[in-house]
Amino acid sequence: MTDASPDLPNSLDAQLRRRAASVIPGGMWGHMRAAAVPEGYPQFFAGGEGARVRDVDGRDYIDFMCSWGPIILGHRHPEVEAAAREQLDRGDCLDGPTEHAVRLAEKMVALIPHADWALFQKNGSDAMTTCVTLARAGTARRKVLVAKGAYHGAVPWCSPSVLGVTAEDRAHLIYYTYNDVESLDAAVAEAGDDLAAIVASAFKHDLAIRQQLPDAAFARAARAHCDRTGAALVLDDVRAGFRLNLGGSWENVGIRPDLAGYSKAIANGYPLSAVTGNDRFRPAAEQVFVTGSFWYSGAPMAAAVKTLEILEREDGPARLAAAGERFCTGLTEAAARHGFEVTMSGPPAIPLMHFADDPDAKLGEAFCQQALARGVYLHNKHNMFLSLAHTDAVVDEALSAIDDAFAALARDRSADA
Amino acid sequence: MTDASPDLPNSLDAQLRRRAASVIPGGMWGHMRAAAVPEGYPQFFAGGEGARVRDVDGRDYIDFMCSWGPIILGHRHPEVEAAAREQLDRGDCLDGPTEHAVRLAEKMVALIPHADWALFQKNGSDAMTTCVTLARAGTARRKVLVAKGAYHGAVPWCSPSVLGVTAEDRAHLIYYTYNDVESLDAAVAEAGDDLAAIVASAFKHDLAIRQQLPDAAFARAARAHCDRTGAALVLDDVRAGFRLNLGGSWENVGIRPDLAGYSKAIANGYPLSAVTGNDRFRPAAEQVFVTGSFWYSGAPMAAAVKTLEILEREDGPARLAAAGERFCTGLTEAAARHGFEVTMSGPPAIPLMHFADDPDAKLGEAFCQQALARGVYLHNKHNMFLSLAHTDAVVDEALSAIDDAFAALARDRSADA
Repeated sequence: MTDASPDLPNSLDAQLRRRAASVIPGGMWGHMRAAAVPEGYPQFFAGGEGARVRDVDGRDYIDFMCSWGPIILGHRHPEVEAAAREQLDRGDCLDGPTEHAVRLAEKMVALIPHADWALFQKNGSDAMTTCVTLARAGTARRKVLVAKGAYHGAVPWCSPSVLGVTAEDRAHLIYYTYNDVESLDAAVAEAGDDLAAIVASAFKHDLAIRQQLPDAAFARAARAHCDRTGAALVLDDVRAGFRLNLGGSWENVGIRPDLAGYSKAIANGYPLSAVTGNDRFRPAAEQVFVTGSFWYSGAPMAAAVKTLEILEREDGPARLAAAGERFCTGLTEAAARHGFEVTMSGPPAIPLMHFADDPDAKLGEAFCQQALARGVYLHNKHNMFLSLAHTDAVVDEALSAIDDAFAALARDRSADA
Repeated sequence: MTDASPDLPNSLDAQLRRRAASVIPGGMWGHMRAAAVPEGYPQFFAGGEGARVRDVDGRDYIDFMCSWGPIILGHRHPEVEAAAREQLDRGDCLDGPTEHAVRLAEKMVALIPHADWALFQKNGSDAMTTCVTLARAGTARRKVLVAKGAYHGAVPWCSPSVLGVTAEDRAHLIYYTYNDVESLDAAVAEAGDDLAAIVASAFKHDLAIRQQLPDAAFARAARAHCDRTGAALVLDDVRAGFRLNLGGSWENVGIRPDLAGYSKAIANGYPLSAVTGNDRFRPAAEQVFVTGSFWYSGAPMAAAVKTLEILEREDGPARLAAAGERFCTGLTEAAARHGFEVTMSGPPAIPLMHFADDPDAKLGEAFCQQALARGVYLHNKHNMFLSLAHTDAVVDEALSAIDDAFAALARDRSADA
């Protein structure tokens, strides 16, 4: 596929990469560095519309990453854009919040059963750090339970990278295994009377590991421990929030947290995160000082209100689940037609793809490259994301290209054999 | 001034406050809560243009807070808006960065002498936390020196609020006194061979305390300690960056840091922060994983490139200094004309106001209320900010209202006497 690759020496992508190599560490930092996706994937993008993104060389892809989660209605959804622009046209970052802060807090309190209040930030890491701080403030305790391997952000207390992190940054963390009640019990016992919080992701979505939905028994055990000890049950809904259930992802297992963090899809791409909490943690939230220069800006909040309205009106989670089912079933069937075994784990709207018999993950990588060359942007290690712009027609168009990609993969395999 | 106050019971501001009280902790969180400004100040804003902001009840103010720093060219600067909109019209948050990431990194490397590279984030807290992490990663040491009372963000390692913070979050901090070489020497000695970084603000801008520019001798001592020990000199230019010197605020004292954090004014209100570093810390920056969902969005970076271009073209720092001088001199002279002694401390473009003989700070508060009622938005405890939209005519218009405000304050004082 190298002849269609954006990393041809004269492509704009290649030119930008060469320039970036001298002025940006490693050419790019963080989760959007091209070093983390298969060779041939573009590093730089120009725009997007609906279910499609366009790279800087003008190639369009049906987008199954949705900007790694933020795009839930499709790129540049006209109603969201109009809502954001209306505020942008008057001013975004002012000497205080706009009315949209109130409208959004009201909207979240109305949608999310556990939420008695909300506050807004910028990063998912902001929201999760604030949840932990509020849990400690509200309980006057220190120990925080987190699942081994879970991703709660990229700041020292929780970053997957330990370089530059001190032991003290994680001194009060105790680890349990997601969906394993015994390990949770043991961690709670270890925390003793210093248990401030149990933090759990909406579902198990650790990088490159088969995803797991939460077991109801596990969620109930976490709730029961918090009820018994007075600790905070903290739901990390940053990645999953609003895709699985507009009331919070653990509504699907009937469990309500005390505090929850949201970001990603909340404003269909506009920068925003949120913490919701119940009244037990309101005094803590009134006293802890958390802030940021752009946290009160109006346009992202206007975008969020509109995004949530549309998700409600369109029965968003159900439609996303259906689109995800169509995509996941179609992809695994296409794989089987060409002699490959692929499983999709996790919620269909946020699926992770695994190839059987692929110990070095080269098969998944080669498949993604074949799909990319046919205009479908997939990810071989990280979960993907569906949006409401992934209509049946769009998903079927992608599946047709995916079938061709598997056919090419099968040809390559038999040529190699 | 209550008859002009936006907190009349039927004002839109009052209505929004009542609604916020039930769904937002304390009615508002963080530095933009109205509880932190004098009674009568609006909580909610509708928009802004140039040097003026408008509250939700339609009252316009000449704005000396500039959104607490982000607005450096004036609200809704047309060239910045056009640059941001051009990218917004194509898509903002995509599957990877846009070309603006490269353009902005190149621009910062060109402008800032110490910078060999740049990376971008959202919050000032992100930038400062990353600087500390990179310093630790690059030196394999742990101790970080910070000035007593300095504000470097609102996350547990540095927040002014200690509720919900554990002792371990600050286990490796050692405190010195800003501009006090002896205290810096003592802190360096205490860190011993575990010194990772000396963190210093661009100038001493602790809340409500008379501001101090950096002494050159102090800055030189910090640089010398870092040169001798291999620790990183980290400049917190989040608040001051681009207002005092486009090459970094310590260019004014001839000292270059190893790492620096920027945010606030970098994109004239669009959400963005940045870390710059020299090549000594490039390997650390290549290895440490820091990221966020919206850190790669194109529009704020397009806005930042344009903001920096305009600041360069317009000789921004010199014009801001001149506007600040006109404002500070005019305000202190107006005070004197009416029998008050007011001092302005810190750089004139980021001045802090103090009334003499005002032990309970009531005089400053009453003055701000009088000025607000006359259409001038000042702050009595936090430093203020000038922008390029603060032309001589705008400053003079504000000074005329300020003169009236002092006259009213004098009348109130003699009526009370």
